[in-house]
Amino acid sequence: MNYDQIFDQAIDRLHSEGRYRVFIEILRNKGSYPDARCFAGHNGPKPITVWCSNDYLAMGQHPKVVEAMEEALHNVGAGSGGTRNIGGNTHYHIQLEQELADLHGKEGALLFTSGYVSNDATLSTLAKLLPGCVIFSDELNHASMIAGIRNSGCEKRVWRHNDVAHLEELLAAEDPDVPKLIAFESVYSMDADVAPIHAICDLADKYNALTYIDEVHAVGMYGARGGGISERDAAAGRIDIIEGTLGKAFGVMGGYIAADQKIIDVIRSYAPGFIFTTSLSPVLVAGVLASVRHLKSSSEEREKQQASAATLKRMMREAGLPVLDSTTHIVPLMVGDPVKAKRISDILLAEYGAYVQPINYPTVPRGKERLRFTPGPAHTDAMMRELTDALVEIWDRLEMRLAA
Amino acid sequence: MNYDQIFDQAIDRLHSEGRYRVFIEILRNKGSYPDARCFAGHNGPKPITVWCSNDYLAMGQHPKVVEAMEEALHNVGAGSGGTRNIGGNTHYHIQLEQELADLHGKEGALLFTSGYVSNDATLSTLAKLLPGCVIFSDELNHASMIAGIRNSGCEKRVWRHNDVAHLEELLAAEDPDVPKLIAFESVYSMDADVAPIHAICDLADKYNALTYIDEVHAVGMYGARGGGISERDAAAGRIDIIEGTLGKAFGVMGGYIAADQKIIDVIRSYAPGFIFTTSLSPVLVAGVLASVRHLKSSSEEREKQQASAATLKRMMREAGLPVLDSTTHIVPLMVGDPVKAKRISDILLAEYGAYVQPINYPTVPRGKERLRFTPGPAHTDAMMRELTDALVEIWDRLEMRLAA
Repeated sequence: MNYDQIFDQAIDRLHSEGRYRVFIEILRNKGSYPDARCFAGHNGPKPITVWCSNDYLAMGQHPKVVEAMEEALHNVGAGSGGTRNIGGNTHYHIQLEQELADLHGKEGALLFTSGYVSNDATLSTLAKLLPGCVIFSDELNHASMIAGIRNSGCEKRVWRHNDVAHLEELLAAEDPDVPKLIAFESVYSMDADVAPIHAICDLADKYNALTYIDEVHAVGMYGARGGGISERDAAAGRIDIIEGTLGKAFGVMGGYIAADQKIIDVIRSYAPGFIFTTSLSPVLVAGVLASVRHLKSSSEEREKQQASAATLKRMMREAGLPVLDSTTHIVPLMVGDPVKAKRISDILLAEYGAYVQPINYPTVPRGKERLRFTPGPAHTDAMMRELTDALVEIWDRLEMRLAA
Repeated sequence: MNYDQIFDQAIDRLHSEGRYRVFIEILRNKGSYPDARCFAGHNGPKPITVWCSNDYLAMGQHPKVVEAMEEALHNVGAGSGGTRNIGGNTHYHIQLEQELADLHGKEGALLFTSGYVSNDATLSTLAKLLPGCVIFSDELNHASMIAGIRNSGCEKRVWRHNDVAHLEELLAAEDPDVPKLIAFESVYSMDADVAPIHAICDLADKYNALTYIDEVHAVGMYGARGGGISERDAAAGRIDIIEGTLGKAFGVMGGYIAADQKIIDVIRSYAPGFIFTTSLSPVLVAGVLASVRHLKSSSEEREKQQASAATLKRMMREAGLPVLDSTTHIVPLMVGDPVKAKRISDILLAEYGAYVQPINYPTVPRGKERLRFTPGPAHTDAMMRELTDALVEIWDRLEMRLAA
């Protein structure tokens, strides 16, 4: 048994497929984001513009968020010091859970250390508590949902992406007396499309299934108060469990679910991934609290973000670049080859100071490699013009096809 | 299918066993920890003393840590904005990984959002990469290690706690050509005892097994530089993977592994729990960096903590309280009944302003319920005297037996 050899082979496989990941080392400049500094090894150190952050609304640098974190830091210190049950349950945590419950019109909410953990812990625990549960999962669900479903050990049926006819087929084929859970996302991060929530809820009603929606790419950004697509579509009341993140539009870190008090209590009491982990630092929680409260009453950031996304999509389309049509804030530019996607990204960073990561397998299917741009309220039209021009030049240089 | 009824029953089971958890809502007072404020609903708001925090060395309020976090907050903002691969790889992350690799004398280190995730992600990924791998797990391993082992889907052999003869028996029974991984902790948090690392490594050598040690209750606190029991016992070089937390002695939040570059690269490249999650907030990372650096050169906190633990154990023993004998910084006081453990904890909080959580199943086996005290460098002898006197009064009141 030669362990080194096995590990070498695992790494070699990534190199040979052109999808070995090199992390770009940066520091963002608070107050002037999307500006950042890129460190040595990437033709730096030098100033760059960030085009691939999930700090969608630049809330990570919002004065209210920064002030709230600074105040908490001086009030209670750096960490929580324990699990939620053992010393780590601060007044900030309770307040934020109330705020998030209110955001989604639910009785309660529960914080996790990340969106990944909230999906994994909730789905695996829920399905374990329901004897014989079958989970119906959209084929493009995020890795963390897949992990939770797999870790539950229960039966899984995968329905074709956003295809409610296929979902119904699978639901109808199941024993009516078996517990059922339909798990899906609202905004799909890589394809930038949106789930038909009401149609899915209609099926949940008809077949008596619980519903679980991942709104990590929507909370803060859709709905009049930032409650996500389920708020925008007036569907939150039809969903049993809404899951969200505190690390994207809210600009900080962490994850949560919102649901009836009963479900919250069950997950709180049974999920190992919630119970046996140090709770979120109160500094982070205080920052999120400020962020959620701000975005409940301010739509300016959301509107600017939508305008930026529309502008960048228009510019790219007009330049003949293969931008994916979408109705959301995410701008996917299709490449279809992992080596080329990385090459374009490298040139953008080294020659144009534009930072966007190539998105390769397993984040997207092989052959669907892309660059994924997330323009926000702080990206100007001039920046987007410059980026589009750079892309056209690179497309030309690499002899890739532009639309007529 | 009545979902509500199933959830009700799940909660009823906890109530009927006396282990339904009520979280105590607090805010610690930075600068004067272990003092804290307890909120309404617990006979508060009122001042309390925290006796159950895992901020073992009070680094969560250390001026260097707080200053570093404040500086990072103003430098780069609240969150990282992305996964390590997509925009969330800051200069702080790289620096901290180098610092942690150095702490353990390893080539590399890898950060996770929590210690729980580092165990779950690393163990499950490692075992999946080694075809036919068998994991040998100490029976008292933490829930997060058990989760990782279960989620790997591989074969598991559980050996009796710290019993190397039993471990050898199990290793010898296995096919020599099958990959093997021995997973254990250094300091066991609930029984406060320590693993025989060298004896386990001898077996790993003999049977060609990889070794994985969880040092979350030891890093920062043992060894001349805070490298844990593996440093204290000069065994770090014999362990393949050392796992630690940033949320206990280092006072902030997060987890990590340290290992050869090859292993780090494999986990970095294959573990979904590492890849598909927003990276630690740079604010936290900056705080940990200051904490790790400080504890590498200062032994004052470690020495004071050990002195406090020795004093409290002595006081409890002299008072006839059933304190568990241990050589570590954790002070477990055995109760053996979930309802009584909670009752004692409630009285301590309500009448004496002393906050310690009851530890019930599943954190410890049924019948082994206890109170777990973690005195640190900031707990004074006078505080410990007061606590011991209170416990004696409560023991008397509840007609529990004191030793002669």
